[in-house]
Amino acid sequence: MPRVSQDQLDARRHEILTAARACFARHGYEGATVRRLEEATGLSRGAIFHHFRDKDSLFLAVAEDDAATMVETVARNGLVQVMRDLLARAVSPDTTGWLGSQLEVSRRLRTDPAFAKRWAERSAAIADATRERLSRQREAGVLREDLPIDVLARFLELAYDGLVLHLAMGRPAGDLGPVLDLVEEAVRRR
Amino acid sequence: MPRVSQDQLDARRHEILTAARACFARHGYEGATVRRLEEATGLSRGAIFHHFRDKDSLFLAVAEDDAATMVETVARNGLVQVMRDLLARAVSPDTTGWLGSQLEVSRRLRTDPAFAKRWAERSAAIADATRERLSRQREAGVLREDLPIDVLARFLELAYDGLVLHLAMGRPAGDLGPVLDLVEEAVRRR
Repeated sequence: MPRVSQDQLDARRHEILTAARACFARHGYEGATVRRLEEATGLSRGAIFHHFRDKDSLFLAVAEDDAATMVETVARNGLVQVMRDLLARAVSPDTTGWLGSQLEVSRRLRTDPAFAKRWAERSAAIADATRERLSRQREAGVLREDLPIDVLARFLELAYDGLVLHLAMGRPAGDLGPVLDLVEEAVRRR
Repeated sequence: MPRVSQDQLDARRHEILTAARACFARHGYEGATVRRLEEATGLSRGAIFHHFRDKDSLFLAVAEDDAATMVETVARNGLVQVMRDLLARAVSPDTTGWLGSQLEVSRRLRTDPAFAKRWAERSAAIADATRERLSRQREAGVLREDLPIDVLARFLELAYDGLVLHLAMGRPAGDLGPVLDLVEEAVRRR
């Protein structure tokens, strides 16, 4: 029954990604040793690396999984909604894990040119989704008209990056609702 | 001549901070080994640790030096000007070093509760300077009146954090001038 087997493989792969995300977030890329990844997943290294070639491939898969989810959410609800969701989930361990992997991506973009090159495509997909959504909003007449889409998109991306860093530093999330209202208002038609 | 001697000590201390800042930025806290700090400063470990108790004290001194500079600049010219300066200097190696230490602070805030506790005071000084400056601007009638100072301050801090992460990830800085104009406009009286 190859279909069931593929489903099982996919489910196992998803379980490994979820556990590895938390492990990378807690210990960082270097600190997430193979032993710790075994503990986090409850699997042997042989089982883990049956699904992912090596630790680097596993980390990239976690980050790509996050990026794909973000592209979907941006396309559907926009980047401000991504920020509001992030804020709402800011206290959950899942979000902590996600933020950790975002910061780890940031660190590796800065220190690892090969990684930066591989990552450029994912980053472009998120940027494209943001601009497409803003273009649709401009057609719908809800955006301010005096600035190019690209400036509005970069402004939202700046706020998004700020939120990631704010939350990743463990600063309180509670007071940021009115700040996101201000971010949203700044790109809207008066 | 104790006064000359103190000047010399201060100058040496400043030299060590500058070299150590670049070293922490390039290699991260863990990667900036004592051997690398010796190479970066051109001094022996004995000479370095005559001025700073240990590597952790040296890192904290770098970060505190940055924070003190930032408090002065915020008080004088405001947080948007800090961002504009950062953008203008974004290509220089000095800025790269500074950004690296900012991200390293972020990482340690997340992973090191003792550090987070020591850092809270510095962080509060920057936050206070931002709010005091905004209060003076409100008295001068240049700020929008419909939102509390605290929301405006948090909005600017979000943009600042976003800029730090953006530049630290090595993304292009050139297109962000109009974005900072939009940030500034969003807090000003219409």
